[in-house]
Amino acid sequence: MGKRKGMTYLRSGVVGLEGLSSWGQFLYWVKKTIKDHPEVKTEIGLYASVIRIAPNLGIALSTDGVGTKLLVAELMKKYDTIGIDCIAMNVNDIICVGARPVAMLDYIALQDATQPYLAEVGKGLYAGAVESRISIPGGEIAQLREMIKGIEEGKGFDLAGCAVGLVDPNKLIVGEGIKEGDPIIGLASSGLHSNGYTLARKVLLGNFKINQRIKELGRTVGEELLEPTRIYVRPAMAMLDQKIKVKAFLHITGDGFRNLRRVRSKVGFLLDNLPEPPPVFKLIQKVGRVSNEEMANTFNMGIGFCVVVSEKDAAKVLKVCKRHKVPAQVIGRAVKDAEKKIIIPSMQVVGKADKFYPI
Amino acid sequence: MGKRKGMTYLRSGVVGLEGLSSWGQFLYWVKKTIKDHPEVKTEIGLYASVIRIAPNLGIALSTDGVGTKLLVAELMKKYDTIGIDCIAMNVNDIICVGARPVAMLDYIALQDATQPYLAEVGKGLYAGAVESRISIPGGEIAQLREMIKGIEEGKGFDLAGCAVGLVDPNKLIVGEGIKEGDPIIGLASSGLHSNGYTLARKVLLGNFKINQRIKELGRTVGEELLEPTRIYVRPAMAMLDQKIKVKAFLHITGDGFRNLRRVRSKVGFLLDNLPEPPPVFKLIQKVGRVSNEEMANTFNMGIGFCVVVSEKDAAKVLKVCKRHKVPAQVIGRAVKDAEKKIIIPSMQVVGKADKFYPI
Repeated sequence: MGKRKGMTYLRSGVVGLEGLSSWGQFLYWVKKTIKDHPEVKTEIGLYASVIRIAPNLGIALSTDGVGTKLLVAELMKKYDTIGIDCIAMNVNDIICVGARPVAMLDYIALQDATQPYLAEVGKGLYAGAVESRISIPGGEIAQLREMIKGIEEGKGFDLAGCAVGLVDPNKLIVGEGIKEGDPIIGLASSGLHSNGYTLARKVLLGNFKINQRIKELGRTVGEELLEPTRIYVRPAMAMLDQKIKVKAFLHITGDGFRNLRRVRSKVGFLLDNLPEPPPVFKLIQKVGRVSNEEMANTFNMGIGFCVVVSEKDAAKVLKVCKRHKVPAQVIGRAVKDAEKKIIIPSMQVVGKADKFYPI
Repeated sequence: MGKRKGMTYLRSGVVGLEGLSSWGQFLYWVKKTIKDHPEVKTEIGLYASVIRIAPNLGIALSTDGVGTKLLVAELMKKYDTIGIDCIAMNVNDIICVGARPVAMLDYIALQDATQPYLAEVGKGLYAGAVESRISIPGGEIAQLREMIKGIEEGKGFDLAGCAVGLVDPNKLIVGEGIKEGDPIIGLASSGLHSNGYTLARKVLLGNFKINQRIKELGRTVGEELLEPTRIYVRPAMAMLDQKIKVKAFLHITGDGFRNLRRVRSKVGFLLDNLPEPPPVFKLIQKVGRVSNEEMANTFNMGIGFCVVVSEKDAAKVLKVCKRHKVPAQVIGRAVKDAEKKIIIPSMQVVGKADKFYPI
């Protein structure tokens, strides 16, 4: 617990952007574009950007890609679910501001358009679109042989998307009004989702064959790694349709539970009732000798989406989840904390502004 | 003229997507997502997708990347203008349906986020955003070391964007109502813009050093190749603001003047008054021994944007262009033609459904 040995996400090849000066300068320029545009209702760092286009109407925008999970698809020669991940990573962000997803454009950059996998990618995009109730009215396929690579020469590709949703800009959900003691409900993830794959691949594919059946997982490593990201659009929209007063929707992505710090309220969270982590997380930690704080920094640990409400609304949220067959439970509570720390007693870690630390 | 020797875009490494079965299947799935969404007001193949979100309000969406022009930036170690290209390629598409650009999200996939070029990319994005009067309210930077490559290991990156605009869905500009004899006004490009770089690089960088000064160009090869794409938002919006009845706005991109076939009207175009092609196009053709039809298939030949109006409105369009300091002239006329052919007498080529052919 709390040991600093083993592999860290940093050492496995992904560097945090925040500390970099060129990244800071990049942000300076991008933020400068917002200054003269009062219609932009969100600051950089929220899950989605909201632009007011009429007094009671705003559009929410978000862009994200599938990342190195695509390399797993290539290894498995199975391309029919990564489209689901592409939709999921985008629409799960869009709903976090309280917007209803409407459409997504896909962006595919590839080495060789004659590869047969494109059809399979389309199949997954369709499945994700149906689940999210959105259309894919357009997109771009760019042939960039010299800029893209994969594992096998010619088979490399990148898949990203840009989603748009609609929201009343006067009713944005940005984590305001959260009070000490408010429950946070965690909705189960389907697995790793589409984050932490640099570490997950390094550990799992460094120690097992991709088609190796693992008892703890009940399937092969590749199957586990390719499990599509769960889409939370239907339960989240059902909560809004039922007028449940949602204080925060939080998609648990790259930084794990540090995503909870995105709430505007000056509160921390004590996550003292997390479910047992699913087998894939335990396996990665054991095999890779990964520290608890590194696990917390990198993975969703079994919870892919969180909802913060008042105590009186918790049961309603849980009921919606049950109806939509998404395992959910109260995983903790908001606590008074100007530093917005995320405390996970079961992992003996505390999440601060930059990362998780051992308690 | 019309010879089939020399280099073709196909042989230089880029394959047309239309003929591919996996691409056809991909499109099948994507189109299927639109079927249950009557709010989608556009078919696949227009410059932008339009979604009606209120009786008189629609959002236009488009996504595009800078492509292999990025490799020129890497070679030149000059990254402060490719952001302009990224904005241009997207907003120039958005305006083609008559929409006013509002915002763009950037998507950057890169090998190594510690490279200093990010700041420069931001500078260009800012310049493009100011010129287009849009904000960049968000975006994504994905570190994908194993999926991206450049010329030098570690310096590879991809830069794309997704733009959104607003438009009255009852007043979409989709090339309807074009009559025989209607003039087509061509607005000058600034050079190659961001299309045809696989061929342009192969020819120019295969025959010259990147920092070699070329008399015809009045500058180095690299400087010419990096010239930022012209943004047509201001003149195009001025035309709409002046209530000029624009029948078609056409961004001249990947397929050159075959883009004119995107009009919904069953007309062809006779381009019998094109200006002399700028020096870079002549140089590529001469040095690469590129056929006329291949040039027409690949490049904008000096015209980056076209406007189709009634005869009586042509002078107004030209006046707006003059005020915005964009060289423009009537380059031809619509002709009765159910096959929608694009005829360029000066190049002795005719553009059909799949490509340009020698006349």
